[in-house]
Amino acid sequence: MSTHDRHLRVGMVGYAFMGAAHSQAWRTVNRVYDLPARVRMSLICGRDESKVADAADRLGWDGHTTDWRRLVESDEIDVVDICTPGDSHCEIAIAALAAGKHVLCEKPLANTVEEARQMTAAAARARADGVRAMCGFNYRRVPAVAMMRQLVADGRLGVIRHVRAAYLQDWIVDPQFPLVWRLQRDRAGSGALGDIGAHIIDLTQYVTGQRIGGVSALTETFVKERPLPAGSSGLAAHADGNGRATGTVTVDDAAVFVARLDGGALATYEASRFATGRKNALRVEINGSLGTVVFDLERLNELEFYDATRPAAEQGFTRILVTEGEHPYMSAWWPPGHIIGYEHSFTHQMRDFVEAVATGVDPTPSFADALQVQLVLDAVTRSAELGSSWTEVEPAVAAELAA
Amino acid sequence: MSTHDRHLRVGMVGYAFMGAAHSQAWRTVNRVYDLPARVRMSLICGRDESKVADAADRLGWDGHTTDWRRLVESDEIDVVDICTPGDSHCEIAIAALAAGKHVLCEKPLANTVEEARQMTAAAARARADGVRAMCGFNYRRVPAVAMMRQLVADGRLGVIRHVRAAYLQDWIVDPQFPLVWRLQRDRAGSGALGDIGAHIIDLTQYVTGQRIGGVSALTETFVKERPLPAGSSGLAAHADGNGRATGTVTVDDAAVFVARLDGGALATYEASRFATGRKNALRVEINGSLGTVVFDLERLNELEFYDATRPAAEQGFTRILVTEGEHPYMSAWWPPGHIIGYEHSFTHQMRDFVEAVATGVDPTPSFADALQVQLVLDAVTRSAELGSSWTEVEPAVAAELAA
Amino acid sequence: MSTHDRHLRVGMVGYAFMGAAHSQAWRTVNRVYDLPARVRMSLICGRDESKVADAADRLGWDGHTTDWRRLVESDEIDVVDICTPGDSHCEIAIAALAAGKHVLCEKPLANTVEEARQMTAAAARARADGVRAMCGFNYRRVPAVAMMRQLVADGRLGVIRHVRAAYLQDWIVDPQFPLVWRLQRDRAGSGALGDIGAHIIDLTQYVTGQRIGGVSALTETFVKERPLPAGSSGLAAHADGNGRATGTVTVDDAAVFVARLDGGALATYEASRFATGRKNALRVEINGSLGTVVFDLERLNELEFYDATRPAAEQGFTRILVTEGEHPYMSAWWPPGHIIGYEHSFTHQMRDFVEAVATGVDPTPSFADALQVQLVLDAVTRSAELGSSWTEVEPAVAAELAA
Amino acid sequence: MSTHDRHLRVGMVGYAFMGAAHSQAWRTVNRVYDLPARVRMSLICGRDESKVADAADRLGWDGHTTDWRRLVESDEIDVVDICTPGDSHCEIAIAALAAGKHVLCEKPLANTVEEARQMTAAAARARADGVRAMCGFNYRRVPAVAMMRQLVADGRLGVIRHVRAAYLQDWIVDPQFPLVWRLQRDRAGSGALGDIGAHIIDLTQYVTGQRIGGVSALTETFVKERPLPAGSSGLAAHADGNGRATGTVTVDDAAVFVARLDGGALATYEASRFATGRKNALRVEINGSLGTVVFDLERLNELEFYDATRPAAEQGFTRILVTEGEHPYMSAWWPPGHIIGYEHSFTHQMRDFVEAVATGVDPTPSFADALQVQLVLDAVTRSAELGSSWTEVEPAVAAELAA
Repeated sequence: MSTHDRHLRVGMVGYAFMGAAHSQAWRTVNRVYDLPARVRMSLICGRDESKVADAADRLGWDGHTTDWRRLVESDEIDVVDICTPGDSHCEIAIAALAAGKHVLCEKPLANTVEEARQMTAAAARARADGVRAMCGFNYRRVPAVAMMRQLVADGRLGVIRHVRAAYLQDWIVDPQFPLVWRLQRDRAGSGALGDIGAHIIDLTQYVTGQRIGGVSALTETFVKERPLPAGSSGLAAHADGNGRATGTVTVDDAAVFVARLDGGALATYEASRFATGRKNALRVEINGSLGTVVFDLERLNELEFYDATRPAAEQGFTRILVTEGEHPYMSAWWPPGHIIGYEHSFTHQMRDFVEAVATGVDPTPSFADALQVQLVLDAVTRSAELGSSWTEVEPAVAAELAA
Repeated sequence: MSTHDRHLRVGMVGYAFMGAAHSQAWRTVNRVYDLPARVRMSLICGRDESKVADAADRLGWDGHTTDWRRLVESDEIDVVDICTPGDSHCEIAIAALAAGKHVLCEKPLANTVEEARQMTAAAARARADGVRAMCGFNYRRVPAVAMMRQLVADGRLGVIRHVRAAYLQDWIVDPQFPLVWRLQRDRAGSGALGDIGAHIIDLTQYVTGQRIGGVSALTETFVKERPLPAGSSGLAAHADGNGRATGTVTVDDAAVFVARLDGGALATYEASRFATGRKNALRVEINGSLGTVVFDLERLNELEFYDATRPAAEQGFTRILVTEGEHPYMSAWWPPGHIIGYEHSFTHQMRDFVEAVATGVDPTPSFADALQVQLVLDAVTRSAELGSSWTEVEPAVAAELAA
Repeated sequence: MSTHDRHLRVGMVGYAFMGAAHSQAWRTVNRVYDLPARVRMSLICGRDESKVADAADRLGWDGHTTDWRRLVESDEIDVVDICTPGDSHCEIAIAALAAGKHVLCEKPLANTVEEARQMTAAAARARADGVRAMCGFNYRRVPAVAMMRQLVADGRLGVIRHVRAAYLQDWIVDPQFPLVWRLQRDRAGSGALGDIGAHIIDLTQYVTGQRIGGVSALTETFVKERPLPAGSSGLAAHADGNGRATGTVTVDDAAVFVARLDGGALATYEASRFATGRKNALRVEINGSLGTVVFDLERLNELEFYDATRPAAEQGFTRILVTEGEHPYMSAWWPPGHIIGYEHSFTHQMRDFVEAVATGVDPTPSFADALQVQLVLDAVTRSAELGSSWTEVEPAVAAELAA
Repeated sequence: MSTHDRHLRVGMVGYAFMGAAHSQAWRTVNRVYDLPARVRMSLICGRDESKVADAADRLGWDGHTTDWRRLVESDEIDVVDICTPGDSHCEIAIAALAAGKHVLCEKPLANTVEEARQMTAAAARARADGVRAMCGFNYRRVPAVAMMRQLVADGRLGVIRHVRAAYLQDWIVDPQFPLVWRLQRDRAGSGALGDIGAHIIDLTQYVTGQRIGGVSALTETFVKERPLPAGSSGLAAHADGNGRATGTVTVDDAAVFVARLDGGALATYEASRFATGRKNALRVEINGSLGTVVFDLERLNELEFYDATRPAAEQGFTRILVTEGEHPYMSAWWPPGHIIGYEHSFTHQMRDFVEAVATGVDPTPSFADALQVQLVLDAVTRSAELGSSWTEVEPAVAAELAA
């Protein structure tokens, strides 16, 4: 069978923001990269029949369903792509793996450590049958992030001394912003912490090759009661001064913590949805004994690199425009200086996922990697609950790490 | 017939850099925007059978051909998209318009004023039959550029005093870079001037709503002889010191000029492929009596705006991240702060083109607009040939402007 | 007596980095500002006769001495300016106040809370006799910082949600950098924490008008043994592998902590001398419900201000060049856009000090303000010693605050 | 006689903006640099007795006079520092040189080429007697500019291809800004061109080591009639619609030109007082075959350097913070990262001037260098008058160049 005859038939669960981003990537990946298999956008699943039908039409999926179990068990699906809120990840992923489907699951892997453990164990079992599982920390595939990783791995930063990471947004600064699912613990697990804090935890551990050992954390919910979204139901509703139905915010608006990495670095982390003016400001700076790198997701085509081995009078932060053919993922795109956008990180993710699945290799980050992030999130939550006391990150047990 | 049943069947001529960019846009436009017609990527044309077959497969076109006349005359094509070098634009466009096809033609419209005049006249004739023609100055559709245009139109800059425009690249700084078609006058018409200078001429005239009245220009070819590209033939070949075949560069490496706009502003323009370190640096600054805007294509999601009507102590350049739903074209994409890339300007262009064609409106920029850019390019060339003497831009005649 | 006849005779103790900076400011202040008294640079004191004589000559002091007690008690001195390492601040300041001299003391006020308490009490006693005391947190007088303070005070930021402060340097990244006094606890009190951390503690409390209530902190000494400086003596010396004498670093290289401010904001703080590539990078960002300000000492003439009350499509970070006559301290300097430097913060400090003393007003920050900073430093140190446990900042007692 | 006994007694003519800046520099230079002579600020001269007396007092000059001839001829003056408007430079400088005084003259050297020639000839004659003359293009002494010069001289940029220079201000955008002397041709010679355009002409020629050979220029006076300043007299006055006395602006508001440098580079230059939002924005970019440098006076402590000989994936613009001891002029100032301001360029200028005079060496830029700038200004003016025709820069004759 020639390469061009091989197909991966994808079924995607969820069709909101992440569903749209994944669809764009599935649609694009074979048009840009030469891969050992072709993606078919076979089936999309959502709970609302009319909406999912529209989504299938608009986003370009061959069919749709409202029954995720049907999708997961279909003989005409090779890959299950999970883009739902965190509360359903565990059930869907475990069912899909059990059905022998390769799984790509959005981050955070789960809403609890317990779920993440179960998923990691399921992935370990499925792996014996050649079934692959990956968690969608898409920012690993931003070319500048991949380049950071390479610079550290090549020893260009020397011994890592500091990690300084923040992921700042401001979309709920207005107290009238409604109580959407991302502000409800039972759906989202946590607030800024799991949604965006998870990204910087994964990204910094990935880039440095080190793990967070312990944390002292503070979290805060600045606005504790919000209007219910239009058409919402089932929330324990109160009313505000104007008689409008409101509900209680049950997740954090912001989380900050200090940490030690297992290689000896000191770190600060911050995730917030209350950083006025910061829209999608994932910023990471890593200082090593030989150099420093700085990354800002709002300028994701750029990487700042300070090389302390250069002549003293010429040292400085070099703004590298990461758009050259020499840079990770970029040779397939446009000429130098022609920038790419947010969505491209998903196309790169799909490239690596397709390649791994088609060639029988484990894609990364694995579910075990994502479990480890979950354990850090858990330590942060526990530290905050204990009045910002020092809290060590629980180790994943051997069986799970083997996954 | 419902909106969803209406299709526009596109045939594209050319499959190199521009062909790939246009394909990505045709493929994406209906997935992101709700439009009155659906694009079908029907036919792609190129001179090399095997290469165009590969391109059709990779880029996602239903069929391919090596005969552009067949494509232009096919009953199964509604739109002809011309992505070839400038020397074939005129013939293809005129044939397509004559065959009643809507035409989208890459910039610069033509290699000579004479050709551009013929094309503009052809577009005027076809228009009587409801056939539409547009030139692909895609940067007009960068959201920040569209926003600049709006700020000027709203009077936020007051009287325009200065335009400062440069489009800088560096891909031929190395004298060993080969003599590709873009360095040959008979294929490309001119060098940096027509390739990238055309963009800043169009963009600044579009944003300010003013036209360049006259220029004093200098052009230069810094490296006059280059190695022939592998597999090239038909070039008047010489040999360099190492016995390698070389050919003469027949276009400009760089062009600079000062200009007066018809609204009274002074302007400087620069287009160069010898600006070391500048990869795709289209930079425009416009100073008005009430404010200033600054744009840089390498950071195309940002617009700097100085509003001189603000309180004195708070004035400054505001870096607007042009990723909000309120910004042009952006409501269909990702949440605020999630940036878009170079290729999105083409998707926006296709959106406007499809909408115009489907609703029977003339898209812009028209061929007449593009002819006017050609007349500026011509004035620059003549000024440079006459030792940088002041040269007025020739007016387009009425019949052509009517197009 | 006319204003111009009134003089303030200054005696300065110390002549190293801070001594030079203060001298430049004392020399300049009356040349730039119109003040109710004239400064005379009367006497400079240092321990080494020959060096202090040179310093007097070079820096422009009328006389010199090696005996700080003589300076403090001299009838020909009105103001004592203390620029020595922290271990001598307490003794000199208390003696000077007792002798009826106005005192300007460099930060941090002291090496311990106990000393700071004594000094604050002494200042309170002296105040009854019209004697003034001030601590030299000079960055309060950077125009952009003063402007930040004003924006917060005017309510332009709304409710403060986040403080993000770092003061990063890199001058001891090299393990061969010698064990200078700033790396010895008995001289300097602490390392990065007291030297540069004190600045961001003071600055953020000043700008927000809020105080740090508690902290969880980590500190680290990355390089624990360093070569002794040339000519050093009295240090408990070891030897390195090359037989060179080394000594133990007894202060922190870096300190990081999370904090709650008493107005409800979450904060992160970081002070490090191991941030490769960061030379004097004091960076502060403050997010409020209505806006954000960002400051970077390496670009001290600029302030970024995000005003969330502006129209949505025009919001962004405005880079205000703080060089207008409308900006604090700036009307006396150069035309707009002509930037000032680091040393000007001292000139501004001297302006305010001279004006306060001459008009009988208490200058700020007072010793009580500086004691409060010391109490935060102490909480950080204790938290770090207790394994990053949450540690509340001890309140200053009433008598001291009255100072 | 020991070094410390040697004095240079300075007499300064003028006490406005430049006088204040020079005073600050004269006062500071010996406090920071170890020099072979000590400056005495002996005498200051201005036309208004009361104002010059105040200035002497405030700026720290020993004496004052209203008679510049007395100053120039005084036996107690070694150096004459000319800070007056351009119309008096020639007379004062020639008289001072004739009297055997070393002369530092502000730029532009004169209001006309003819005057500049006379001054250059006078300097050549005086030189035979060991009398030194220098023109005050102070920006040559900004450390980042000196570093640019060195990089070019060391061959780090390779062959220079492009110069892109602009000096932009906005202080007369408001049509109600009055008709001050800088807007009157008989006092100032020209407008933006001579005032700020002269700086970028000198700076770029200095940095590249090349001279401008010819230009095509446009100039414009956007606001042709302005209110008279309070207390003005002797201007040909009209009246505006409100009956206020107005006068005609007789200089350019802005000048733009393209140029060829004698080493083959293409250049664009722009000087404007109508660039809204640009306060003191002298910006220069120089592209060479091996690298690029970028400088911005509003961030004068920074230099961007692109080194195209670095590995491809690591190339980028390196933001060098020019505050290290290794950088020109900086070892005498503060630790790395502690920035300097506008006025420091004058202190550096005085350092080099004092050193040159004291050691019997010719300081630079010489009057001949400044004459050459004047010849470029003249070519620009003539080109603009001739409708932007190409105009070659007249060569200085041999006798003058010998100066």
